[in-house]
Amino acid sequence: MTSVAVPIVRVDGARRTAQDDALAIEEPLEIRLAFPGRELAKKPEEKSISITMRTPGDDVALALGFLVSEGIIHTAADVDDARHCGPPVREDATSNIVKITLGAGARFDGARLERHFYTSSSCGVCGKTSLEAVRSALHAPLVAGAPRITPQTVHGLPRTLREAQLTFERTGGLHAAGLFDATGRLLLLREDVGRHNAVDKVVGEQLRAGALPLRDRILLVSGRASFELVQKAVMAGVAILAAVGAPSSLAVELAREEHLTLLGFVRDGRFNVYTGEERLVGAGAASS
Amino acid sequence: MTSVAVPIVRVDGARRTAQDDALAIEEPLEIRLAFPGRELAKKPEEKSISITMRTPGDDVALALGFLVSEGIIHTAADVDDARHCGPPVREDATSNIVKITLGAGARFDGARLERHFYTSSSCGVCGKTSLEAVRSALHAPLVAGAPRITPQTVHGLPRTLREAQLTFERTGGLHAAGLFDATGRLLLLREDVGRHNAVDKVVGEQLRAGALPLRDRILLVSGRASFELVQKAVMAGVAILAAVGAPSSLAVELAREEHLTLLGFVRDGRFNVYTGEERLVGAGAASS
Repeated sequence: MTSVAVPIVRVDGARRTAQDDALAIEEPLEIRLAFPGRELAKKPEEKSISITMRTPGDDVALALGFLVSEGIIHTAADVDDARHCGPPVREDATSNIVKITLGAGARFDGARLERHFYTSSSCGVCGKTSLEAVRSALHAPLVAGAPRITPQTVHGLPRTLREAQLTFERTGGLHAAGLFDATGRLLLLREDVGRHNAVDKVVGEQLRAGALPLRDRILLVSGRASFELVQKAVMAGVAILAAVGAPSSLAVELAREEHLTLLGFVRDGRFNVYTGEERLVGAGAASS
Repeated sequence: MTSVAVPIVRVDGARRTAQDDALAIEEPLEIRLAFPGRELAKKPEEKSISITMRTPGDDVALALGFLVSEGIIHTAADVDDARHCGPPVREDATSNIVKITLGAGARFDGARLERHFYTSSSCGVCGKTSLEAVRSALHAPLVAGAPRITPQTVHGLPRTLREAQLTFERTGGLHAAGLFDATGRLLLLREDVGRHNAVDKVVGEQLRAGALPLRDRILLVSGRASFELVQKAVMAGVAILAAVGAPSSLAVELAREEHLTLLGFVRDGRFNVYTGEERLVGAGAASS
């Protein structure tokens, strides 16, 4: 369940009508990390590393995807256990807390995690630091190259996403992230009140499926492309990030340095290529 | 300067054209808090409490507004000094760090601040906790009542905001927050890549002007109304929050408990009233 009905008053001009409206559900999710103790027979230490406002559902995937974005895990083998904990708050017995237990082999860097507390959702104090932090955390950097896509494939993405977004039609309150193959076939769709959460859910699901890095995939997000979203795409090894809205300056800068293809304003049969044009094949090289 | 030009390739159908595009600038801002030492002659302690990705400009106001939202300050008298620090990174000699020094009289609660680290941008682990945290931090809770507004005033808000948003027209990448009086006159407009930052900038500016709480004001935000935005409105004492997009479930819940009037989908001569209908005067009570 991603929406809830509430009574509202609709005002059209001066006319008021009482009716019901569907609201996207927003609730906090706490992500706790348990990691092997430094000494034998010591219980694993546990730390709360993030609280995000999200739409309930796919919480474990969200938490896993978040850890990928932060460079804390890279494959499913880095995780020993991942599950809800704490008192259940809804019918399916899930709670608002997910605990991820790292595997004994996971190279865990406490100092790095400590920094994460202060750098919040993946950013540093100056743009340069942020870019370097992302680069240093990359497990296997992207190289310019595959996949190749056609403009026609790109033009078709938003419609495919919209048609799959039944919930969006109902509440108007959910962002979406869709994972496509290079021919434009939709592989996975996740929705959330937060765009970054929708992306984390997609990435976490793919981690569980053993599908990272997502080299041959296109990731489409509703709305704008911020630095944070480009970082999440880069950390998951996505080659092509497409956004229905505008990218920011730092988003373009990071995409360029990491050889990511960044497309913006993808709608109505048009789009802008900000970086990585070489992945676009078909009619017509750029003319000015 | 809130935007920067970059070369892009525009794709229209299969046709490609090289051109320039204006990008909204996104850079990290670190907010540091310095507070009086517990002992005499001790230097003030300093703590980094937040890093947010924002559009440079009005940084000090952003930091002050953030502290209001978090319940750390309530009036300008709680602040001794507020300024950029660290190495300048742009032409006007501003940096990406703002330091706020609390006044000796500010009732500073270290344990409370510690909690803020873990509750990130103003949320708790369960919705209930969040709501209670906001309520307990309220300096002077809202009561149902003034101001009264007409539907016509509400209908006019988005257009007034849009006309003032010159930058938005240029980049398509900036969110906006506009502060209006009860007759719909625009008093203050701030833009940012993040909606929450735009609101913090408005609130911080009003704190400096000695205008908090903003009881008789309408706050209009582009996009959606999340829990976080309602919390910021409540903490600043705003009576009416209007959003161009949809509110979330928790946003409506908090608005109801705090007697805030919450309007959503404010566009094209229509809007939805989620809470606080009593502030709406003029033709027609609700009929179903």
